[in-house]
Amino acid sequence: MANRVELTGQILATSGLRFTPAGVATVEMRLAHGSEQNEAGRPRQVVCEVEAIAFGETARKLSQSPVGSQVSLIGFLDRKSPRSSLLTVHVTDYELI
Amino acid sequence: MANRVELTGQILATSGLRFTPAGVATVEMRLAHGSEQNEAGRPRQVVCEVEAIAFGETARKLSQSPVGSQVSLIGFLDRKSPRSSLLTVHVTDYELI
Repeated sequence: MANRVELTGQILATSGLRFTPAGVATVEMRLAHGSEQNEAGRPRQVVCEVEAIAFGETARKLSQSPVGSQVSLIGFLDRKSPRSSLLTVHVTDYELI
Repeated sequence: MANRVELTGQILATSGLRFTPAGVATVEMRLAHGSEQNEAGRPRQVVCEVEAIAFGETARKLSQSPVGSQVSLIGFLDRKSPRSSLLTVHVTDYELI
């Protein structure tokens, strides 16, 4: 079942590196995204904020990127928590741009 | 700026075909998505509901898919409305599976 996101954004806020109770590295971020997309033959200006989270080695590296950094993410969507309808991008790979 | 989503899901609810005040065809849907993703070297079970919207020809075709249909979408993320932090997948292409 497909679930893949590619997104470029600017880091607005970051939790910094933290660890789950099981000792897994994690970082949460809020990103600002802006782009022009083509929809039904018309340009659409997209401006949104996206919550992102990473675990393990990706989290260790991504947590070193300061607020203001432009990052290009690859990952998947999941709900933020079992009772939330908010979606979060789980980052599995990224690069600074 | 990258903003691309690939997602498979089952249609839970659909608005049916509607038209914007400007006469553009549109349809809104809620999809159930379930998959297993690889995150930090571990399998993660993803279960979430995703809001999707389409416009134009894509909306005309997608609106014919009844609740229960499995669809594979391609599109982009945008906020649901200017004052909402909810994200919606704007569907630019899809296929029934």
